[in-house]
Amino acid sequence: MKPMGPIPPEFAGQQGALAIGGRAAADWIEGDAPVFVYDPAIVAARVARFRASFAGIDLHYAIKANPFPPLLAAMAGMVDGFDVASAGELDKVAGLGLPVSFAGPGKRDGELAAAIAAGIALNVESEGEAERALTIAARLGRVPRLAVRVNPDVELRGSGMRMGGRPSPFGIDAVRVPVLVRRLVAADADWRGFHIYAGSQALDAQAIIDTHAATLDLAARLADEAGHAPPLVNLGGGFGVPYFAGDTALEVEKVGAALTDALSGRAAVLADSRFAIELGRWLVAEAGVYLARVIDRKESGGETFLILSGGLNHQLAASGNFGTVVRRNYPLAVAHAMGAEWHETVSVVGPLCTPLDRLGDRVALPAAAAGDVIAIFLAGAYGASASPAAFLGHPAAAERLAR
Amino acid sequence: MKPMGPIPPEFAGQQGALAIGGRAAADWIEGDAPVFVYDPAIVAARVARFRASFAGIDLHYAIKANPFPPLLAAMAGMVDGFDVASAGELDKVAGLGLPVSFAGPGKRDGELAAAIAAGIALNVESEGEAERALTIAARLGRVPRLAVRVNPDVELRGSGMRMGGRPSPFGIDAVRVPVLVRRLVAADADWRGFHIYAGSQALDAQAIIDTHAATLDLAARLADEAGHAPPLVNLGGGFGVPYFAGDTALEVEKVGAALTDALSGRAAVLADSRFAIELGRWLVAEAGVYLARVIDRKESGGETFLILSGGLNHQLAASGNFGTVVRRNYPLAVAHAMGAEWHETVSVVGPLCTPLDRLGDRVALPAAAAGDVIAIFLAGAYGASASPAAFLGHPAAAERLAR
Repeated sequence: MKPMGPIPPEFAGQQGALAIGGRAAADWIEGDAPVFVYDPAIVAARVARFRASFAGIDLHYAIKANPFPPLLAAMAGMVDGFDVASAGELDKVAGLGLPVSFAGPGKRDGELAAAIAAGIALNVESEGEAERALTIAARLGRVPRLAVRVNPDVELRGSGMRMGGRPSPFGIDAVRVPVLVRRLVAADADWRGFHIYAGSQALDAQAIIDTHAATLDLAARLADEAGHAPPLVNLGGGFGVPYFAGDTALEVEKVGAALTDALSGRAAVLADSRFAIELGRWLVAEAGVYLARVIDRKESGGETFLILSGGLNHQLAASGNFGTVVRRNYPLAVAHAMGAEWHETVSVVGPLCTPLDRLGDRVALPAAAAGDVIAIFLAGAYGASASPAAFLGHPAAAERLAR
Repeated sequence: MKPMGPIPPEFAGQQGALAIGGRAAADWIEGDAPVFVYDPAIVAARVARFRASFAGIDLHYAIKANPFPPLLAAMAGMVDGFDVASAGELDKVAGLGLPVSFAGPGKRDGELAAAIAAGIALNVESEGEAERALTIAARLGRVPRLAVRVNPDVELRGSGMRMGGRPSPFGIDAVRVPVLVRRLVAADADWRGFHIYAGSQALDAQAIIDTHAATLDLAARLADEAGHAPPLVNLGGGFGVPYFAGDTALEVEKVGAALTDALSGRAAVLADSRFAIELGRWLVAEAGVYLARVIDRKESGGETFLILSGGLNHQLAASGNFGTVVRRNYPLAVAHAMGAEWHETVSVVGPLCTPLDRLGDRVALPAAAAGDVIAIFLAGAYGASASPAAFLGHPAAAERLAR
């Protein structure tokens, strides 16, 4: 038997039939077709938790975590801005009425033009990209809104993916930033400030607190050297969620208190700046559940397998094939038997003809038979949109907003 | 500097502008949009090489490796059958005029019905699935064509993914197969024989030879115990291609000679059986090249990055995030400078806002600037269809058949 990660708090205490947004899981799934269900009330609860501890700090949603249009529409009333990473993502938030910023190391000319024409803020990732943006803006007769993405000389300790403190395709090395800021201002761009992202999926509050302190110091130093105060400092995100056995939830209240404290003593050059935290995974991961039906139950070599109607073609991350070195089990459950004692050890696999398609490796579950529904939690972020949907020609999963 | 894998033989000797199917790479790529180009002449060369050493043995193409419809149409004139793994894949080969078989551990009732109605052979993966197939066939008034997929008690040594010799979601444990064969024959199904797949991506000819010998022994033993001779024995595939530094090409001629020899001395119960080899990757991987344009070239921390217009959203496997534990470099090249001396060490990354999106880690390449085209080889199998195309909202890659 191998352990599973913790079931998110809104589902962990349920007994009997799993409910998502007040409806039983079995009512969300149609026939054999797997479905992702996202509960906006859980997203709203995360937003409220953030607001309670981060007064006066903007909250941005990085839609790469989950760009499902009905979810974006629901979140437009919850957050202060959307962060996008492509022209395709830009299209998805157009018309939702919130400020938008656009980051990404390989923005094509067409993407830069679309963003400048739409008047959204570009986080420029290199000097070359900055020059391309200025040229395109001049051609369009627009004043471009340009922030500078900084490759910080600090990293986020303990983060799942470090994105600072090393050579990186993301942002401009801090040492070269002041010159670029002066260049943008001199070129009459609308300089929007800094975007400083040091890592992701961190569960250690103190690590994030230390990173925020270093990031504020860095922003102040770069602003002083540039001789211009940043209108906005995007402090990045990096708030993690517990996926695996032994993971514990991030104490965001500690992070918020420390950041509020740090901001109250911030350097003079940042006195009039706004500050934003950009979150993706932390807002939406726990709000999503992937549901698939057991198509077959079989024994082999003394082990039992539950074979589902969907697998890594829909939820690649849960198979351990996306950004993890060692495969570990996401939390999962038999949807009609929440809170029941475990009955047997089974491996839960998808329908694909590859040994990679394993969603639960020797997990302890209540009894389940063909026709039962299995719930895989933490499916709200980097699930449907981050999986190879066409692989092996199965239908795409449905997506539903619970409301 | 880190090594790259070997460029496939049809491209390795080229000088100057890379040609695919007789056309320069730069002519295949339109603007910034990445493209996969597949050369059917390279597939035909692999087929010819197989035919020369495997006389009298059927060649099946497992379309999961690359289901691009124009490629399937071209291959319909080269191989003896298609193997599919879903109803979606079945739709893609319908009308191409070749025998089809359908394997996959989680076949839904609708898929079984579609296959039985179409008269194609189902490789049943469990006793439960066999019973469902018999029930559905009776309802449809059809005689189902059923082969038994065997979970062999041998494994393919040195294969990238072992699929035999252990508890498995694939096939039926060998010990239980004879009873099932008798059940199918007694139920008046058209029993088609055995499907025995022991692993994939093997480069060691002797390992495949040993596995073939063990598979023939197993098929004979199971047929004797069942009391029925199999019309067809699908011996699986598992032929690998070299992806990484140090990999050497499989000596298929040795495999063919040994299999021909083994078949000439096969057991009496297999005297009238046909035999098939089912190949995917080996036929198509080297025929495909992924082309993307350099959008930006930047320096960070003393390292140089080339940022492409596409990345793991199109070619996940090359980023090391699909079935590999340790990330290694696929072979890649600057498309206008084949055969040129290396000039610098660069990292080649995609446009996605994630550190996972790295296609070449500190590789030695000729000089390349924004606007140049980078070629990533071995993109013909498990590329476009096995990647998260929607991730981060970039356009899907184009696919083209060179001819």
